[in-house]
Amino acid sequence: MNIPDCPLPTQPTDCITLAHGGGGRMTNRLIESIFYPAFANQWLEQAHDGATLPMPHSRLAFTTDSFVVSPLFFPGGNIGDLAVNGTVNDLLCCGATPLYLSAAFILEEGLPLDTLRQVVQAMREAATRAGVSIVTGDTKVVEHGKCDGLYINTSGIGLVPGNIEIGLHRVQKGDAVIVTGPIGNHGVSILSTREGLNFETTIESDTAALTHIVSNLLAGVPDVHMLRDPTRGGLSSTLNEIAEGAGVTITLDEQSLPIEPPVRAACDLLGLDPLYVANEGILLIFLPDEHAEQALHIIRNDPHGKGARLIGHVTDDRRPEVLLELALGQTRVLDMLSGEQLPRIC
Amino acid sequence: MNIPDCPLPTQPTDCITLAHGGGGRMTNRLIESIFYPAFANQWLEQAHDGATLPMPHSRLAFTTDSFVVSPLFFPGGNIGDLAVNGTVNDLLCCGATPLYLSAAFILEEGLPLDTLRQVVQAMREAATRAGVSIVTGDTKVVEHGKCDGLYINTSGIGLVPGNIEIGLHRVQKGDAVIVTGPIGNHGVSILSTREGLNFETTIESDTAALTHIVSNLLAGVPDVHMLRDPTRGGLSSTLNEIAEGAGVTITLDEQSLPIEPPVRAACDLLGLDPLYVANEGILLIFLPDEHAEQALHIIRNDPHGKGARLIGHVTDDRRPEVLLELALGQTRVLDMLSGEQLPRIC
Repeated sequence: MNIPDCPLPTQPTDCITLAHGGGGRMTNRLIESIFYPAFANQWLEQAHDGATLPMPHSRLAFTTDSFVVSPLFFPGGNIGDLAVNGTVNDLLCCGATPLYLSAAFILEEGLPLDTLRQVVQAMREAATRAGVSIVTGDTKVVEHGKCDGLYINTSGIGLVPGNIEIGLHRVQKGDAVIVTGPIGNHGVSILSTREGLNFETTIESDTAALTHIVSNLLAGVPDVHMLRDPTRGGLSSTLNEIAEGAGVTITLDEQSLPIEPPVRAACDLLGLDPLYVANEGILLIFLPDEHAEQALHIIRNDPHGKGARLIGHVTDDRRPEVLLELALGQTRVLDMLSGEQLPRIC
Repeated sequence: MNIPDCPLPTQPTDCITLAHGGGGRMTNRLIESIFYPAFANQWLEQAHDGATLPMPHSRLAFTTDSFVVSPLFFPGGNIGDLAVNGTVNDLLCCGATPLYLSAAFILEEGLPLDTLRQVVQAMREAATRAGVSIVTGDTKVVEHGKCDGLYINTSGIGLVPGNIEIGLHRVQKGDAVIVTGPIGNHGVSILSTREGLNFETTIESDTAALTHIVSNLLAGVPDVHMLRDPTRGGLSSTLNEIAEGAGVTITLDEQSLPIEPPVRAACDLLGLDPLYVANEGILLIFLPDEHAEQALHIIRNDPHGKGARLIGHVTDDRRPEVLLELALGQTRVLDMLSGEQLPRIC
C-alpha cells in the first residue's frame, strides 16, 4: 500500500504542475501519456471534448467538465453559469441537442450558504436559457483548506441527429474557419478581477450557451465539419489541436481576428497574447467554404454571434500546423500554448 | 459583483459544515433547501442516486459522483477503483446496464505523476471488471493547498431495459429487505488507515462493482422493487431515505445484520455504530417476500454476495420510519445520521 504525500514539486517532471492544467501542450502530454493509454477505446480516441456514443436507435453525446475558476464571481458571470454553459457548449460541439446535465459539488467547509445559493441560482437560469434539465447530482464537503470555496463538475448528455457528423475526420482542405465572436474576453475578465485591475471599460466574460447559434446553423447550412469552443489555451491551442488531430494546415488572417479594443489594450498591459487567452462563449466552426457566407449570416442574427468573422481556411492537408498571415504579408507559425498562461480560468 | 471569502464557520447555520457532506440529515436538508428548489424537474425528483431518463426508443440512467476520499490509498482499494465502482453501482441501482463513464480529475499542483498513474491504472482495471468504457474526461489543476492530492468525478450512463421498473414508488408493505454482504467494512477501513490504527486483522474496504449480482438478480427473479447502495451515512441513513421517500415502515432484525467480528470490534473501539458506517460494495434490495429465497440463492452464488442476508421487511405503509428489533424483543427507532460521522469516506 502506498500513501503518497503531495509535496511542492521538487522534481517538476515527476509531479503535476499548473502547466498540466493550462490547456496547452503539457495538458495534452498528460492526457496522452496517462489517460489515453489507460482508458483506451474508440470513443475516447475521438479526442473531442465529448464522446458520441452509439445507443439503440440513436447516438448520444456525453461530456464532462470540472470548474475550478478563481474568483468564483467575475464580471459577466460566476462559476455556476460557467459550469452549465461550458458543458452545454461541449455537447453542441458534438453536434448534439443538449438535454440533461448532472451537477456535482465539492464544497469547502466554511463556504457561506448564501454564496452557494447565488451559484445554484445562476446554474438554474443558465440551464433554463440553454434548454437543459439538471437531473442528477452529488455533494461532497471537504475540510477548510482542501478546496477553494467550491468546485463544480457538470456532465452532460445530448442526442445527435442522424444526419449530423461532426469531428476531426471531417476537417478538410478548403474548409472555411469561422469564429462566432471576439476573442479573449473571458480570460481577461478573470485575470483583471483576480488582480484587482480596473480598466476604463469593465471587460466582461463572454460565458454563454450557444444553443441557438448551433441549432440554427445546423438547420440552415447543408454541412458543418467541425465545431469546437476555444477555452483553455485559447484560439491558438484549440486550432493546433484540430490541425494535429486532422493532419491539416490552418491559415489565419491576422487582420480578420475579432479582438475588442479594451481586450487588446488589457492584453498589452498584462503581457498576454489574446490568441492564447481562454474564451467561454464563442465557437470555432469549420465548414465548406461555399457555405461560409450563409453561415455568417445565420450566426450574426443571434445576439451572441454579432461579432462572427471568417478568420481563415484549411489551406493544406500535408502538414499539421497553424499559420498566421500578418498584416504586412509575412507568415508566422502559431504554436500550442506551452505551459500555463492563466491558471483556474474555468 | 460579490466576491465572497470562505472563512471558517463563525455562524454555523449560514455556512457549509462537514456535516453537510455526511450523507445524513444535514446533507438531505442542503439538497432539499438549495438544490431541489433551484433545479426542480421530474427526474431530479426521483430522489434516486441517478436519474432514469426518457430517450427515443429507450430509457437512460445517468448519475454523477465526486470522490474526495482521504487517504487516496487504503486496504482493498484506492480513490480510482472507488470512483469507478461507485458510479457503476449507482447505475445498477437504477436497474440499468452500465455502459459509459466519464472521468474528470482535479489535480493538486505537486501531485506525483506516479500516484496519478496508479490511480488511473486502478480505474482502468475496475472499468474492465465492470464492463464499462471511460469515454470522455477532463483535467483541471489547482494550486498547492487548494485540493488534497486529487479529486475525481465520474458520471455514468446506462440503459434501462424496458421491463425493469425500480424506484421508491415500487417499495411496498410486505417487501423483503436483503443486504448483499457485511456492513461497515469500507468506513472502518478508511478510518483505521487514516488514524494509523492496526488491528489484528486488516479490515479491507468492500469497494466493488456489483454488476454480476444485479444482472443475475434481474434475470433470475420476476420482480425487484428497489436497489440502493448504502454508502455515506451507512445502512441506517439509506433505509431512512427509502422509508421517507416511499412512506413506509422498515423493520430490521438486529440478529440478522451481517457484521464481521473485526468490524464490530473496531467499531466498539472507535465508538462507531456500524449501522451508520459507509459501505462501497454492498446493495440493499427490496423485492416481494416470496422471491427472497430465490434472490438470496442467486446473490450468494457471486463472490461479492456470499454474505448476503435477509435483514428485514417493509412492515407498514402508514408511517415513514426504520425500526430495529433487538435480540430481546424490544424495538428501537433507527434515525438518519445527524451530522457527519466520518468525513471524506468516498
